[in-house]
Amino acid sequence: MKTIKPVQNLIDEFRKLPTIGPKTAARLVYFLLRAPEEESLRLAEAVTSLKQQTVVCSRCFNVAESDPCEICSDENRQQGVICVVEEPLDVLAIENTGKFHGVYHVLGGVINPIAGIGPEELRINELMGRLSYGDIGEVILAMNPTMEGEATAMYIKKQVQSLPAIALAKVGEKFQPKAGPPLAEKVKSLEGIKITRIARGLPTGGDLEYADSVTLSRALEGRTEF
Amino acid sequence: MKTIKPVQNLIDEFRKLPTIGPKTAARLVYFLLRAPEEESLRLAEAVTSLKQQTVVCSRCFNVAESDPCEICSDENRQQGVICVVEEPLDVLAIENTGKFHGVYHVLGGVINPIAGIGPEELRINELMGRLSYGDIGEVILAMNPTMEGEATAMYIKKQVQSLPAIALAKVGEKFQPKAGPPLAEKVKSLEGIKITRIARGLPTGGDLEYADSVTLSRALEGRTEF
Repeated sequence: MKTIKPVQNLIDEFRKLPTIGPKTAARLVYFLLRAPEEESLRLAEAVTSLKQQTVVCSRCFNVAESDPCEICSDENRQQGVICVVEEPLDVLAIENTGKFHGVYHVLGGVINPIAGIGPEELRINELMGRLSYGDIGEVILAMNPTMEGEATAMYIKKQVQSLPAIALAKVGEKFQPKAGPPLAEKVKSLEGIKITRIARGLPTGGDLEYADSVTLSRALEGRTEF
Repeated sequence: MKTIKPVQNLIDEFRKLPTIGPKTAARLVYFLLRAPEEESLRLAEAVTSLKQQTVVCSRCFNVAESDPCEICSDENRQQGVICVVEEPLDVLAIENTGKFHGVYHVLGGVINPIAGIGPEELRINELMGRLSYGDIGEVILAMNPTMEGEATAMYIKKQVQSLPAIALAKVGEKFQPKAGPPLAEKVKSLEGIKITRIARGLPTGGDLEYADSVTLSRALEGRTEF
């Protein structure tokens, strides 16, 4: 016996969460033991309703209260600009800047052959669907500047660039869509999709002296007129 | 709007816990969103039953499933050796060593005049009660080696040392307890209570070179034959 069951139980549950080790888990539990009961009940309630009150948006795959989500159904946002991110948490980070007024596409991860995650495990086909059938002007690739993030960005870029050829093949087949613009026009609009990648460089407050050489190279390459 | 309500709600609840800032709270929530629903339900359940299935032991004031707690009612433990600690978490730490076979007394904090915590706010009177009416041979003071911990240890030491005089005053009043040994014997046993303090010195794996001078002085003072 190390401690009583209800305490050990909650310690074990907390330990399953990321960044929480055995010591932190114990601290959290003993904090809740001292706190008024309403506190723990509010926490339990919030945990329970998290899953019950959320859905995954079928368009952008972000966590949402409704489907399509608030962002996808907001007419004041630029529905023709899609920012592609790895995780729902990245949407939160970008929303917090208040600088982006387009919509999102959550991949659900990055291509990582070592972990057995290929393009099929991600929402890349769904992204291509949105590009093929919607009127999209720009795709911003906002994956993390990691090896896997870069590889995923490269893969998506090639996929987007192959879209006109795929549509053109259908023109050759003399297939014409029943609704919307004729296929030839569609091919032209697919060719016009701008693909951008978020800037890499020194973080604000960063120090040139301590920056790694890859970051510094990127900062030089990406220099802008001042 | 930063994020949807069920998500923000849980982020806010997690943030109330110690060591969890806004970024960690968000990470925990998005982890739970990805995890299967049973996981969150188990966590919610464990949080709810934490308070419902625990009581405070009326003898040692530790968190327990029953009153008196498992340790206080364990006949295999030395009921005459009381280890005085600040918080229930300290009991867990000492139990994990497996080296202590006595019982505990949880003070519920330390004397801290700045925070407005005097001896009356702690379970010091209850400790004196246990010493006066029980057959206690040793009191181990296991408060943290901080300023407040030392002050509390000093205070308790003086209180324990004043117990025989208090009992003796009652002998003068010709008052004799109805049950138990005569008061004169009781005074003798109170005088015999050993008061000890847990050792202070270098922590295992510590480095003499980097130890502060107070710790090093304590390590020298408390040296043992080798």
